[in-house]
Amino acid sequence: MSSRESIRRALDGEHPTLGRSVEFALLALIVISALAMGVETISGLPEQVTTCLAAFEAFVVAVFTAEYLLRLATAPKPWRYATSFYGIIDLASILPSLAGIFLSGSVLDTRALRTLRLFRLLRLLKAARYALAVDRLGEAWRLVRDEVLVFGVAAFIVLYVCALIIYQFENEAQPDVFSSVFTAMWWAAVTLTTVGYGDIYPITAMGRIFTVLMLFIALGIIAIPTGLVASAMSELRKRKSAPRKGSDAT
Amino acid sequence: MSSRESIRRALDGEHPTLGRSVEFALLALIVISALAMGVETISGLPEQVTTCLAAFEAFVVAVFTAEYLLRLATAPKPWRYATSFYGIIDLASILPSLAGIFLSGSVLDTRALRTLRLFRLLRLLKAARYALAVDRLGEAWRLVRDEVLVFGVAAFIVLYVCALIIYQFENEAQPDVFSSVFTAMWWAAVTLTTVGYGDIYPITAMGRIFTVLMLFIALGIIAIPTGLVASAMSELRKRKSAPRKGSDAT
Amino acid sequence: MSSRESIRRALDGEHPTLGRSVEFALLALIVISALAMGVETISGLPEQVTTCLAAFEAFVVAVFTAEYLLRLATAPKPWRYATSFYGIIDLASILPSLAGIFLSGSVLDTRALRTLRLFRLLRLLKAARYALAVDRLGEAWRLVRDEVLVFGVAAFIVLYVCALIIYQFENEAQPDVFSSVFTAMWWAAVTLTTVGYGDIYPITAMGRIFTVLMLFIALGIIAIPTGLVASAMSELRKRKSAPRKGSDAT
Amino acid sequence: MSSRESIRRALDGEHPTLGRSVEFALLALIVISALAMGVETISGLPEQVTTCLAAFEAFVVAVFTAEYLLRLATAPKPWRYATSFYGIIDLASILPSLAGIFLSGSVLDTRALRTLRLFRLLRLLKAARYALAVDRLGEAWRLVRDEVLVFGVAAFIVLYVCALIIYQFENEAQPDVFSSVFTAMWWAAVTLTTVGYGDIYPITAMGRIFTVLMLFIALGIIAIPTGLVASAMSELRKRKSAPRKGSDAT
Repeated sequence: MSSRESIRRALDGEHPTLGRSVEFALLALIVISALAMGVETISGLPEQVTTCLAAFEAFVVAVFTAEYLLRLATAPKPWRYATSFYGIIDLASILPSLAGIFLSGSVLDTRALRTLRLFRLLRLLKAARYALAVDRLGEAWRLVRDEVLVFGVAAFIVLYVCALIIYQFENEAQPDVFSSVFTAMWWAAVTLTTVGYGDIYPITAMGRIFTVLMLFIALGIIAIPTGLVASAMSELRKRKSAPRKGSDAT
Repeated sequence: MSSRESIRRALDGEHPTLGRSVEFALLALIVISALAMGVETISGLPEQVTTCLAAFEAFVVAVFTAEYLLRLATAPKPWRYATSFYGIIDLASILPSLAGIFLSGSVLDTRALRTLRLFRLLRLLKAARYALAVDRLGEAWRLVRDEVLVFGVAAFIVLYVCALIIYQFENEAQPDVFSSVFTAMWWAAVTLTTVGYGDIYPITAMGRIFTVLMLFIALGIIAIPTGLVASAMSELRKRKSAPRKGSDAT
Repeated sequence: MSSRESIRRALDGEHPTLGRSVEFALLALIVISALAMGVETISGLPEQVTTCLAAFEAFVVAVFTAEYLLRLATAPKPWRYATSFYGIIDLASILPSLAGIFLSGSVLDTRALRTLRLFRLLRLLKAARYALAVDRLGEAWRLVRDEVLVFGVAAFIVLYVCALIIYQFENEAQPDVFSSVFTAMWWAAVTLTTVGYGDIYPITAMGRIFTVLMLFIALGIIAIPTGLVASAMSELRKRKSAPRKGSDAT
Repeated sequence: MSSRESIRRALDGEHPTLGRSVEFALLALIVISALAMGVETISGLPEQVTTCLAAFEAFVVAVFTAEYLLRLATAPKPWRYATSFYGIIDLASILPSLAGIFLSGSVLDTRALRTLRLFRLLRLLKAARYALAVDRLGEAWRLVRDEVLVFGVAAFIVLYVCALIIYQFENEAQPDVFSSVFTAMWWAAVTLTTVGYGDIYPITAMGRIFTVLMLFIALGIIAIPTGLVASAMSELRKRKSAPRKGSDAT
């Protein structure tokens, strides 16, 4: 096995002697890096902790950059990796920090863009390939994709239409609260998902009657996809546990 | 093919050479017109944009009026079209604007009524006839219609009865909040759908005990129809994927 | 047919010539009387309307009293009717008003107790005997009664335990809001049903962590019974539509 | 039967003459003790009631200590009982009170720790062994454990990632409300469970758009496990009611 092949396998957790240790170390770094991003948000941190976090951030960027270059160098088809789903995520997770370092010399300026790194958590899914349930979820998704997409489009149209209607009823009574159709869409989304923060709600009689009708009719449109996925998953579980049902009849 | 027949087919997307292009252009106009109604609601728009929107509105009304007249003229039985579901919607979507233009010379006075035009978005459903999931939803609906209707009536009765009861408990303690049975029905609807804005809620001990009992008992009445539709839809999906289950036994 | 038998049949909607007209008239009176109770709650009604409502109330009480006495007189076993479910409801719906009239001479003093009359709406269920879905709901209920009862008891225990725990966390920080375990139970019920009015919520770190854990674990306990009833109902629908599945094998 | 064996059986409700009376008396004491903990939280109790509660508390601790020592003394393998699930709960339910009595001479100082005693309510589950539905729930849980665990981990990751993202959008606009990623996680949990207290919600356009997307995508992740458990339970019910379906074919 060439050393190039050896590096590639180590990164993917298929190395004969290293096994999954390199893969797991990288996954652990992703998780710790995500946690560090959370710690950074705490205000009033002592000076030393901030310094530590900046150093750790630099270390993480260095490791991820090295990993990206190694994956690129050892991939059988480098261009294919660079344009693959995980390749783009790997690049997006280091670019903002690298740009920050080279342009302004600071790692903290690009905090918002660094959240792109959270997409690397999706690598956890890849590592979880032994989890049967993840596969089953995938299969269930394929079964119900059509319905869910139709409902997704329908949900968006419902939100927009409900927002336009409630705007006509409430805008005059509460011009500051229902200030445009976009605020009304925020209201419609918060109401139809039954979150109901209470920051925005109808006060006119017509607006309230419309809200009640809307809730009773449209609640289903948003709640049904969940039921579809769950029911498809249990169906698949039954199939798996009785795979040779038909062949017994021979 | 007569030119009358030709126009009718073009409008319905069945024309041999034009295909669905006319139908899709009309659908696009419906969608853009709905979006324009949203843009109109933004306050503080510059003068030019308002002028543009008014012009676009006039254009939309002109096209929809032309479409309505053409459909009426080319229909095999004009009266049947005029009294059909889509015929009424098509008329309702232009009447308010036409009335506004002829009576006051302004297109903006009848804004509230113009929301009737949103019903034209239902034409999208007609165009989506290739979407299998829409059919399946229709079939599922027919399967569970009885249950859903019974639950709908039950839900209304539950709302009314709960409102009358909570009114007895809370009216004395909060005469401004629970001012009549209608406000109490608004409270009951917002509570039973678990939206819970927080604009109106019981504060007396009896009112709270009743609310908890009501939630535990009546929540089901409102949540069950959703489960019924979802379960009927997965059942139909199974039937479709195994249509000749019985005939194999021969 | 004796006139006694004739009266009994007319009240039950089984009279050969009157048919269901008497039954339906009584049901209509129940519904209108329920609506009148709602109208009474509107404040600032003009004098004439109040007088009208009081007169209608007296009329309703008179009719229901006459109905009760007739049912009692014509029942094959009067005592059995008087102690039956509907017999008790019929009596409870007139007693408060009768007591009000005889004791204080006013029909409006016993308003709270008069809500007992709402139970008469249950007679609508009896009239709806032709609705297949009501039967199916009854059957589904018998199928899942055990599970639902276990969940009901579990839900109450969960509410109480959650209330005791959150009280320990929040009472010191918000002594006025979480003032006793009963207020905490109100919080637990409003939170676990995801209504979330916003009148009472945890603010300490421990209280919030507990709330999140509680929501994720205990939400199921309250949501599952709904799913059970829905699934049992679809099962029954399938059985009904394929009743001779087994007998075909002969 | 030795007296040691006799005591053990009496405690477990298997005694030939005492039957389940001792077991039920202990269960009743657990329930009453839990209720007393609730009564203690009411502020402004008269002096006598407080004294009564303290006396009852001492009595409960005495009985539970005696029970623990008896169980320990009569168990075939005392160490095994002491380290079993119920053994640890039994000890944890008396230790805080005992420590309070011996250290400070007061039973009320350790109120928070005494909530550990609520775990004793789990003994009710043991007593409910005749309830078929409890078993069925256990079986259903084993069927869907995998899926539920995967969803549990996914739910935590979703909460954390959503919190990090909303923090980037909202922290600048509301530095006091979205003060750190932990507050943002509280927001994410309250929003995704659709409780929506209204104490914390996004106000920026980007934050609101993200919230709507998050709700539509992530709501399923939290709602699906409930559907899975319910569907597994109905499946088991069907199997139970038709156990010899296959063997009839012989």
